[in-house]
Amino acid sequence: MAEQKKMVEAITSMEEDFAQWYTDVVKKAEMIDYSSVKGCMVFRPYGYAIWENIQKDLDARFKATGHENVYMPMLIPESLLQKEKDHVEGFAPEVAWVTQGGQEKLSERLCIRPTSEVLFCEHYAKVINSYRDLPKLYNQWCSVMRWEKTTRPFLRNSEFLWQEGHTMHETAEEAQAETMRMLNVYADFYKESLAIPVVKGQKTEKEKFAGAVATYTIEPMMHNGVALQGGTSHYFGDGFAKSFGITFTGRDNTLRYPHQTSWGVSTRMIGAIIMVHGDDSGLILPPKIAPVQVAIVPVAQHKAGVLEKAREVADSLKDAFRIKLDDSDNSPGWKFSQYEMKGVPLRLEIGPRDIEQGQCVLVRRDNREKTVVKLEALSAEIEKALQAVHDGLYEKALKNLEEKTFTARNYDEFLDIAENHPGFIKAMWCGDAACEDKLKDATGGVKSRCIPFEEEQLADTCVCCGKPAKHMVYWGKQY
Amino acid sequence: MAEQKKMVEAITSMEEDFAQWYTDVVKKAEMIDYSSVKGCMVFRPYGYAIWENIQKDLDARFKATGHENVYMPMLIPESLLQKEKDHVEGFAPEVAWVTQGGQEKLSERLCIRPTSEVLFCEHYAKVINSYRDLPKLYNQWCSVMRWEKTTRPFLRNSEFLWQEGHTMHETAEEAQAETMRMLNVYADFYKESLAIPVVKGQKTEKEKFAGAVATYTIEPMMHNGVALQGGTSHYFGDGFAKSFGITFTGRDNTLRYPHQTSWGVSTRMIGAIIMVHGDDSGLILPPKIAPVQVAIVPVAQHKAGVLEKAREVADSLKDAFRIKLDDSDNSPGWKFSQYEMKGVPLRLEIGPRDIEQGQCVLVRRDNREKTVVKLEALSAEIEKALQAVHDGLYEKALKNLEEKTFTARNYDEFLDIAENHPGFIKAMWCGDAACEDKLKDATGGVKSRCIPFEEEQLADTCVCCGKPAKHMVYWGKQY
Repeated sequence: MAEQKKMVEAITSMEEDFAQWYTDVVKKAEMIDYSSVKGCMVFRPYGYAIWENIQKDLDARFKATGHENVYMPMLIPESLLQKEKDHVEGFAPEVAWVTQGGQEKLSERLCIRPTSEVLFCEHYAKVINSYRDLPKLYNQWCSVMRWEKTTRPFLRNSEFLWQEGHTMHETAEEAQAETMRMLNVYADFYKESLAIPVVKGQKTEKEKFAGAVATYTIEPMMHNGVALQGGTSHYFGDGFAKSFGITFTGRDNTLRYPHQTSWGVSTRMIGAIIMVHGDDSGLILPPKIAPVQVAIVPVAQHKAGVLEKAREVADSLKDAFRIKLDDSDNSPGWKFSQYEMKGVPLRLEIGPRDIEQGQCVLVRRDNREKTVVKLEALSAEIEKALQAVHDGLYEKALKNLEEKTFTARNYDEFLDIAENHPGFIKAMWCGDAACEDKLKDATGGVKSRCIPFEEEQLADTCVCCGKPAKHMVYWGKQY
Repeated sequence: MAEQKKMVEAITSMEEDFAQWYTDVVKKAEMIDYSSVKGCMVFRPYGYAIWENIQKDLDARFKATGHENVYMPMLIPESLLQKEKDHVEGFAPEVAWVTQGGQEKLSERLCIRPTSEVLFCEHYAKVINSYRDLPKLYNQWCSVMRWEKTTRPFLRNSEFLWQEGHTMHETAEEAQAETMRMLNVYADFYKESLAIPVVKGQKTEKEKFAGAVATYTIEPMMHNGVALQGGTSHYFGDGFAKSFGITFTGRDNTLRYPHQTSWGVSTRMIGAIIMVHGDDSGLILPPKIAPVQVAIVPVAQHKAGVLEKAREVADSLKDAFRIKLDDSDNSPGWKFSQYEMKGVPLRLEIGPRDIEQGQCVLVRRDNREKTVVKLEALSAEIEKALQAVHDGLYEKALKNLEEKTFTARNYDEFLDIAENHPGFIKAMWCGDAACEDKLKDATGGVKSRCIPFEEEQLADTCVCCGKPAKHMVYWGKQY
C-alpha cells in the first residue's frame, strides 16, 4: 500500500491550499504538461479526451440548431484587426505578432488570432449579397492565442482550444434571438452534460466584449467560492458590418447591413469541472464527458478464472459504455487510488467470491457508495448508477452555488461578505461604472459578474453610492 | 436554363487548362475562399465538411490501432527547433516567426509549428522513464504553417490542416512495424474511403523527411498525369531520442533510447480527390466522405403533394444517409447543375408522375446512369448505388493510374516519356542522388516518387548513368 499512500499524499488538500490542490490534480490526473513556452500547455491524452467528448456533445447541439463548421486562417493582418475600433483596443495589447515569414521580413505584422470576428467579417463581406444568403450560421473549432502575464492550466492559457460561433442575420430581432438561443444551448450543456448549474445574465457595459452591443454570460460557482466566466454570447448589432462593408439586398430591394452575433466556450470549462466537482482524492468527472465511465478492477486476479471473467464483463459492456479494464500487475489498492484521482465515475470490482455468486461490486466515485450487483442486471444498473452520479454531482454543485450566494443590502455588508464569505454577492447597482471600480478596489477584486435574467428588488438604492438602483447584480471574484 | 448555362460555362474544361479547371472547381463548389494572408485559406462549410468526414473516418482507424489524441502547443522556441540538426535545416527556412508577445519584445523567437516532432520529443523526455511507459502511440489533429512562395488551395497552403502521429517504442523492430502499419492504414483509407489507388514505397535518401532514417510514402496519380505525395510515414531510429535525452530503463535494467516514428496526412488529400475524380461538370466525391450523399430534387414542386412526398422520402432516408432536400425556388435544371458541381454522388428526382407510380429516379454523378426505383426498395437501392459509385470511381482511377504508368529502359526513352506522356515513369536507378538531380534538370522537374515495395527488374543498369542498377524507381512530376 506504499504506492497508494504516496499517490494520495501527493495531493494538497482543498482546505489547506485550493490553488495547490488544483495544480496537483491537473498534474496527477495526467491532464496537462507544461511546455517551454509560458502559458502554452500540452493537453495529454486524458485531458484531451475530455475535450473530445465535450466537442462531440456541443458540436451535435450546434448542428441540431442549424450551424455549419468552417475553418478560418490563424493569422490576422494588423490592418484587418484595426478595422473595428473598440475591438482592436480590447485585443491588440495581448496578441502575439508574426514579423518574419521564411527568409522574408514581413511588410505588415500578422497576429495569431485572439478571436476571429474580423476574419469572419472579411469573408462574409464576400459571400453575403442578398437576404437569400442569410442567415449565415457558422462555427469554428480551433486554438487561439492571448499573451497572458499570469497563466494557469485550463483557466488562463496563452494558447487555448475553443469554439467560436459567428452568425449573420437579416434583422436585429433574429440576431438577438440567436444570441439568447446559444446562451441557452450553453446553459443546457452545462447542466445536462457537465452537471454544473449556472447563473444566466447580461454583462455590464464595463465587462462586455470589445466591440459588442451586449454580452450575455453563464456563471458557474467553484467549490472555493470563486466565480468563473463559463461561456459568453455576444450581440453586435450592425457595427462590424458597417466597418467591414458587409451589405445585402433586402426583401424590399434596398441595401442593408446584416446583424451579427458571436459566442464561445473554451477548454477553461475543464477547469470549471475540476473546481466544481473535485475533492481531496482528485478529479470527479461527470459521466457524460468522462473518457472512462467504468474502471474494472479485478481482485485477486492471479486466481484462476478472474481475469477471464473480468474480460468477459468488459466485453459485454464496451458497446454501451466507455470501459477501462485494468489488468496491469499493480495492486488493486493502487488502482483504486488511480481511478479516483482520474475521477472515473464508477469502479467495478470483481473477485473470486463475486464470480462464484454471479455478482460484482459497483462503487460510485462521488459518494463512494458501494452496491453489490448481479451480473445479469449489470448493464441496467450501470446505466442507473451513472445517472445517479450525474444527479448527485449536480445537486451538490447546486447546493454549493446556493450556499455561496449572499445578499448585501448596504456597503458595509458588501465589504463584510467580500472579506469573509467567498461566493456570489447579490446587490443593487445604480448602473454607473464608477461604482464597479470602487467596489473592486475596496474588496481586492470583486467585480460584477452579471445582471441576472431573474432580478430581485433587494433594495431601492445602489449598494455603493446610494443613488437609485437600476439593477440587481451578481458580484464576485473570478478566475 | 440561363442560370444553368452560366454555371456550366463558368468552369474551364480540364483539357483546355487543368490548373484553371482546378481553381474553378474549388471556387464554384464553394470549398475555399482566399484570405488577405497569402496561402492562408478559408475552409468554407462544404470544404470543411469533407475534412470532418475524413477526420472521423481516419480517427476511428487510428483509435482502432491503439492511438490516443493529444494537443501540443503551436509555438516552438528557436532553440528547441535547433536541437536536431537535420530537422532544423529542413524546416527553419520556411517557418513563420513570432517576435513580439503583447507589449513585450521576445528574448527568443518562437516559430509557428511546421510539424511537431520537437514538441513531442520535449514531452516524451518527461513522461517516458521505463519500458512500462512504452509504446507511446500519440496523434494530433491541428493546423501547421509553412511559409510557401507559391500557393494553391489544398495542394500548397501556407497554413493547412493535418494529423501527425508521433510514436515511441522499446525496439527498432517495433517502431519499424508501426511505420509500416500506419502507411498501410493510409493506403487502406485511400482505397476504401477515397476510392483512390496508390503506389506504396520508400522515398530515396534525397527525398526523405528532414531527420528521418527512412520515409515511406503513398503516391496517387492525378487525372492529368501529375503525381502527388499522398501521405508519409517516417522511421526515425533513436536519433531524436539521443538529441532530446529521451531514455528509459529497459527490461534488463539498463538505460536505453526509444525508437520513434511519425506519420501524417493533410487537407492536401482534398486536392487529390478533386484531381483524381473530378470532370468538366465539377467535383465528384467518393460517397464515404461526401457531405451530401443524396441530393433530392423535387420536379414540378408547385404541384400538389410533390413537396410533401419529397419531404417524406427525405425523412425516411435521413438516418441511413447524408441527405439534402432542395426545396428552394431555383429551377430543377439549376439544381441539377449545382449538385453536379458539388460532386454529390447520387441525385434523386421525384415528380408528380413518379409519385403516382410509387417510384423515383436515381442518377449517378460519376457516369450519369439513371435508374427508376420503386419507393419501397429505395433505401436498399441507394446503398447499392453508393457502393457502385465508389467502385466505379476506384476502377476509373485505377485505369488512369495504369494507363499513365510508363516504362523507360534507357535515357532517351525517359526523356521522351517525360516530354510526351505525363504520368509515372518506371525506370532503374543506381542509387546515386546525382542521377536524380540530372534527370530532374533534363526533364524540367521529374523527380523520384518512390522505390516501390514491389520492384521489377526492368534492366540491369541505371537509366541515367548506365552503372549497375540498385532499384526500380517510380518517377514523376508532382504537385
